[in-house]
Amino acid sequence: MSDYGRGGEFFADCPARFAIELLADKWTVPVLSALSLGPRRPRDLLESIGGISGKVLSRTLRQLESRGFVQHQRHAEAPPRVDYSLTSLGVTLTEPVLALSDWVRAHGDAVRDASGAEPQGSL
Amino acid sequence: MSDYGRGGEFFADCPARFAIELLADKWTVPVLSALSLGPRRPRDLLESIGGISGKVLSRTLRQLESRGFVQHQRHAEAPPRVDYSLTSLGVTLTEPVLALSDWVRAHGDAVRDASGAEPQGSL
Repeated sequence: MSDYGRGGEFFADCPARFAIELLADKWTVPVLSALSLGPRRPRDLLESIGGISGKVLSRTLRQLESRGFVQHQRHAEAPPRVDYSLTSLGVTLTEPVLALSDWVRAHGDAVRDASGAEPQGSL
Repeated sequence: MSDYGRGGEFFADCPARFAIELLADKWTVPVLSALSLGPRRPRDLLESIGGISGKVLSRTLRQLESRGFVQHQRHAEAPPRVDYSLTSLGVTLTEPVLALSDWVRAHGDAVRDASGAEPQGSL
């Protein structure tokens, strides 16, 4: 078996912990996923994500901007328009998030069978 | 850009959320990583993980067993010995956890530069 996730002298220091901490907020991955299709206005994000309030979306976007994953652009139109999009750093998250999705598609049922846990999302 | 993490009609349902929920506990990934080297006694896990108490280790192992990722075996020795090991389902987590580790190794510095956030572990 591979020594997975190991970073430093102790397993407590494995770098995967940092990534999980960055992604742990309930709405982080859905917002990143919605933006992976291209720039979106907040209204469009609300519709395509589903189940998220405007307030929580705003907070999530601010947090993702502070981490360098998301940027916004104001367009001088009437009415004014703001687009949010992934930064190049945000795009790099595609690969590990897809690896997590693939794992759930392949093994999510086995986890539910073992634990009776209900996933948050459809599989 | 790829439509990453999408599962159902809404991005809120993307399956990666379920995986992150399973891995979100602070000690889940370090314990899985330590067990990826092979069966271990609790005492050995405490030493190799670092910074975890016996109580928290026990709780984490119980949770991982309930999810089907970890199993234990009692050996009829004097004194009695208990080994913990990954199940075949637990081993499947190797790939997505490694993808997260690889991402942190490649981009963790960029995230810290953007946000001033300190990762929990060494990079």
